[in-house]
Amino acid sequence: MTVTDVQMANAIRALSMDAVEAANSGHPGMPMGMADVATVLFTRYLKYDPADPRWPDRDRFILSAGHGSMLLYSLLHLTGYAQPMLEDIRNFRQLGSPCAGHPENFELPGVECTTGPLGQGLAMSVGMAMAERHLNAVFGDDLVDHRTWVIAGDGCLMEGINHEAIGLAAHQKLGRLTVLWDDNRITIDGAVDLSSNEDVVARYAATGWHVVECDGHDYADIARALEAATADDRPSLVRCRTIIGKGAPNKQGTSKTHGSPLGADEVAAARKELGWDYPPFEIPDDIRAAWLDAGKRAAAPHSDWNMRLATAPDRAEFERRMAGDLPEGFSLNDYIKGLLADPKKVATRKASEMALDVINATLPETMGGSADLTPSNNTLTKGLETFDRDNRAGRYVHYGIREFGMSAAMNGMALHGGVIPYGGTFLVFSDYARPAIRLSALQYARVAYVMTHDSIGLGEDGPTHQPVEHVMSLRLIPNLDTYRPCDVVETAECWELAVSRADGPSLLALSRQGLPQLREAAAENRCARGAYRLKAADAERRVVLIASGSEVETAVGVREQLESAGIGADVVSMPCWSRFDAQTADYRADTLPDGVLRVSIEAGTTIGWERYTGLDGLRFGLDGFGASAPAGDLFRHFGLTVDAITAQIRARLAV
Amino acid sequence: MTVTDVQMANAIRALSMDAVEAANSGHPGMPMGMADVATVLFTRYLKYDPADPRWPDRDRFILSAGHGSMLLYSLLHLTGYAQPMLEDIRNFRQLGSPCAGHPENFELPGVECTTGPLGQGLAMSVGMAMAERHLNAVFGDDLVDHRTWVIAGDGCLMEGINHEAIGLAAHQKLGRLTVLWDDNRITIDGAVDLSSNEDVVARYAATGWHVVECDGHDYADIARALEAATADDRPSLVRCRTIIGKGAPNKQGTSKTHGSPLGADEVAAARKELGWDYPPFEIPDDIRAAWLDAGKRAAAPHSDWNMRLATAPDRAEFERRMAGDLPEGFSLNDYIKGLLADPKKVATRKASEMALDVINATLPETMGGSADLTPSNNTLTKGLETFDRDNRAGRYVHYGIREFGMSAAMNGMALHGGVIPYGGTFLVFSDYARPAIRLSALQYARVAYVMTHDSIGLGEDGPTHQPVEHVMSLRLIPNLDTYRPCDVVETAECWELAVSRADGPSLLALSRQGLPQLREAAAENRCARGAYRLKAADAERRVVLIASGSEVETAVGVREQLESAGIGADVVSMPCWSRFDAQTADYRADTLPDGVLRVSIEAGTTIGWERYTGLDGLRFGLDGFGASAPAGDLFRHFGLTVDAITAQIRARLAV
Repeated sequence: MTVTDVQMANAIRALSMDAVEAANSGHPGMPMGMADVATVLFTRYLKYDPADPRWPDRDRFILSAGHGSMLLYSLLHLTGYAQPMLEDIRNFRQLGSPCAGHPENFELPGVECTTGPLGQGLAMSVGMAMAERHLNAVFGDDLVDHRTWVIAGDGCLMEGINHEAIGLAAHQKLGRLTVLWDDNRITIDGAVDLSSNEDVVARYAATGWHVVECDGHDYADIARALEAATADDRPSLVRCRTIIGKGAPNKQGTSKTHGSPLGADEVAAARKELGWDYPPFEIPDDIRAAWLDAGKRAAAPHSDWNMRLATAPDRAEFERRMAGDLPEGFSLNDYIKGLLADPKKVATRKASEMALDVINATLPETMGGSADLTPSNNTLTKGLETFDRDNRAGRYVHYGIREFGMSAAMNGMALHGGVIPYGGTFLVFSDYARPAIRLSALQYARVAYVMTHDSIGLGEDGPTHQPVEHVMSLRLIPNLDTYRPCDVVETAECWELAVSRADGPSLLALSRQGLPQLREAAAENRCARGAYRLKAADAERRVVLIASGSEVETAVGVREQLESAGIGADVVSMPCWSRFDAQTADYRADTLPDGVLRVSIEAGTTIGWERYTGLDGLRFGLDGFGASAPAGDLFRHFGLTVDAITAQIRARLAV
Repeated sequence: MTVTDVQMANAIRALSMDAVEAANSGHPGMPMGMADVATVLFTRYLKYDPADPRWPDRDRFILSAGHGSMLLYSLLHLTGYAQPMLEDIRNFRQLGSPCAGHPENFELPGVECTTGPLGQGLAMSVGMAMAERHLNAVFGDDLVDHRTWVIAGDGCLMEGINHEAIGLAAHQKLGRLTVLWDDNRITIDGAVDLSSNEDVVARYAATGWHVVECDGHDYADIARALEAATADDRPSLVRCRTIIGKGAPNKQGTSKTHGSPLGADEVAAARKELGWDYPPFEIPDDIRAAWLDAGKRAAAPHSDWNMRLATAPDRAEFERRMAGDLPEGFSLNDYIKGLLADPKKVATRKASEMALDVINATLPETMGGSADLTPSNNTLTKGLETFDRDNRAGRYVHYGIREFGMSAAMNGMALHGGVIPYGGTFLVFSDYARPAIRLSALQYARVAYVMTHDSIGLGEDGPTHQPVEHVMSLRLIPNLDTYRPCDVVETAECWELAVSRADGPSLLALSRQGLPQLREAAAENRCARGAYRLKAADAERRVVLIASGSEVETAVGVREQLESAGIGADVVSMPCWSRFDAQTADYRADTLPDGVLRVSIEAGTTIGWERYTGLDGLRFGLDGFGASAPAGDLFRHFGLTVDAITAQIRARLAV
């Protein structure tokens, strides 16, 4: 007897409710509601090969409604991925199981990205679809020719980032992007109309999307909608009208099925309702076989693709880029040597542009952009064409006034592979992008954030635009390397580290104002150590001045005054905390020796600097908001001048 | 000769371009482009009284496109506000001038809120309009009957928060809210269509807004549009088709006028184009008189309103609420005494609900809500009705899945006055709301953030939902009081402090998991000091354990083990860093004495705790991301147990 769609969908429902029940924690409503749509997608449309989850030309599937993780775990298991095994699903949400509460790309190869923070999955999918079109333009249909599919819920559509993401997708006319909207009319507080009355279909249409609707429990209707979606050259929203928790007879259609186990009684009732007479976690052989067959649909196309790749003239370059390897011998050494030979005073945002000029010419995989601050962020280098619907080979994205959407898209691009994205905004607006920056770090995504106007040094725009707490707060995000270079040389070194880092994001905090070149020759990338002695004391060392960014110049000035008074002082430039903390204890102790007065200087919050100054050190910074005035006036107003700092150090030393 | 609208508008243009020129910094394009629209608004529609900028029943005007600050400064000056004076405008963007780069509510009484971070002004206006309708329901038309007007640019409309804000406004059917969209088709990078193709009008309509269009340089057409806007019972978007920098003949209509001075030649050309034959900063008497007349339009209505207020039966209550004073003798003492008599083990999110039960019954001015996590945040107390289009007297807002929009709306409500807003989401999603939290702090807005699920203690939802860096990163925001209470008593104390604080925001980080009551009787609110000795050492003191939130229980357990081994240990509970740092040096030194091993315990990043432990102390926490598992397993996995911590302390002490 043939296995039916409904039996296959019910396998998802059963695994989902049983896993949540076993964990006594989780979200059964969404997997049960979207099981039918997912069945049609995974048995007829999605291009994937469980035998090779990293096949570059696979379709990307993103579960933006990440709380419904059991839908994805069920699908990966049933279609024959090596992981998760049934045992993993039995241990859903337990320590050591790759089946975490929300899907995490670093736990399972079949999970394209980490979702759960609402709206970001869909926004990342936009970046994936952009990367696909770009690589298609570079390498051709033979190697790159796939689609991006998303399942999203009402939360993903209501979040602000949705507006940014779908605006960007429509502008880029990403016809190979399809969003399947789980329209179940339910949120945690109750019915959707408790908080929203918008006409979602009309909104997507107004934004430039193609929209099609279907009954999310009618297989033929779902297939018709997916056909229509794939036929249109705009990004498509498929409105799937569903019943949340479908199959749980007494709770379906209500928020009770959203975020809690159904309970033993309701699970039993659901088994009866679904005609599912099997014990928990048991999948009958015929249904399992049908799912495994579905997972083999792409075996032949994949094999064909392998043959095309084998003879492709640009095979090596394609493989290099998809592996995330930089070209052999990549380095900015020659460029940096040139700087050392010919010192320059420039803003580090300008220094960033100079470094990017070299990087973009050397690395064809970079794709730059800005959230509508191109002339301020200096992110557009010579010869970079605009990436848009008319020029997929372009490498510069005008993201619009969409800091969060840009950052999430960059995550998607990085996770797709084959490109290294960077994008700019003002540092103070890192707050707007912060949820995506966190996901860059959590996902080990190689993204470079170019954050200019990095302190009160931006001047007249005032406290709304002056980051005070931002550099420190970014240092707190695990696995994010936050850099604040002090001059044109350090900026180049930080850029070299950022693009060379394959396993996580980097963020550069850059000045608006010009900064003198302080660095002399060095055989190595000194920023790689996070902090280093820029100037050693001449007189007997009694002070170590630790500074970052524009305040390294101040520290050098303070040192000169102290030395003039016979007080020996080192200057330690500390562009990156996380890298310094990873150095050996010996290196750290040598850089920041005991028995001297340690002084930090940074035009931002002083909270946190005790980590390096100790409690008996001095910390110069800004613990309140800034003000609107020319930069020089502000540094004087807030006591961040050579004279003011030197005086306080001498007072402390009583000399 | 009668002064014409165009002369009045040109006064704005002249002041704006001259001030930007004098500062050699600023944004002339927007004020010049919107001068005509603003002239119609301020001479015919807006209800305001320059003689009393804080008149409670004034219309609220929000310049969401805050970079166009010279538009607002010009209007305030010309219509007769005491501030800014001409001298202030001459000193635009200079230290000490209230005419900051972006408008700041704490600099000028006529500025309703601080804008510049794009999209947030419009989103705050939604909260202002909500507060107005609520107070109208409470106090009636005689006292509260005004409108909210916004000028917004393309940036405000493209930001993600726009989607959240207009969705909320439409859901609440805020018919007295009118947004004037400066549709100039220009962004910093160039033309709007470089990054967006959306049909804004259709999108607003789809969201539930009334939309009307006008020629933004045709006074009659502008007036027609404003009539239509005020006549509709939905919130209205007025699309004003404008030319950016209008009047600057060689640069108008381009991004060159957006963010830089026009330059002397172009300013001269503009003077000729505008027929403005006066020196910089000079306004001819007749034009000044016409503007001052416009500023007197509300004198009579204001006087009538004063008379109504004088005889209003609830005058005292209205004045109390608008002044932001709590009822005489407000305190949670009695409630807290009851807790001390009858200890309870509850999650602090539940303890928060218990405290709110008392607060909401005592303070009619509170308005609660949640970003669709009501049953998780425990923000809805008994008897609180839903505030919506059908019940303006309600005090609970279902904000939807709109953390940022909620937070910005709360800023607007607080700045409107008469209500004290609080709202909830998960602590990890404070990142989504962070730009608005920063503006709460910068604006001195009395907003309470209820952030539950405050550490790995939330368990199975995993690292996407587990805050690690969040509490520390919130502590870095100036003027924000971040609380992490340890039990039901501290939670009540923190709530008492939060609602009692008139000059800034408070944020409560609350546990999902149950926590024992650790506090014994106290005559004072001990959390008011930020940190205090919860348990004193019995044996000779060698250790001080400093902890917050759920880890205070752990610290108490560690203390018991240490004392059993004859090692004296204090436990210091530290719910609020900013309050502790504001205590006297004596109090701080007594609480955290020298000469002992100081140990911090907090299930979050350890960076920053050196501030209290010193470099020779120990810091227990979590410097990487969490994991998905039951909470108890996670605390064991990450070494945050009594046994593991005690062992390390004893190892350090070598006892």
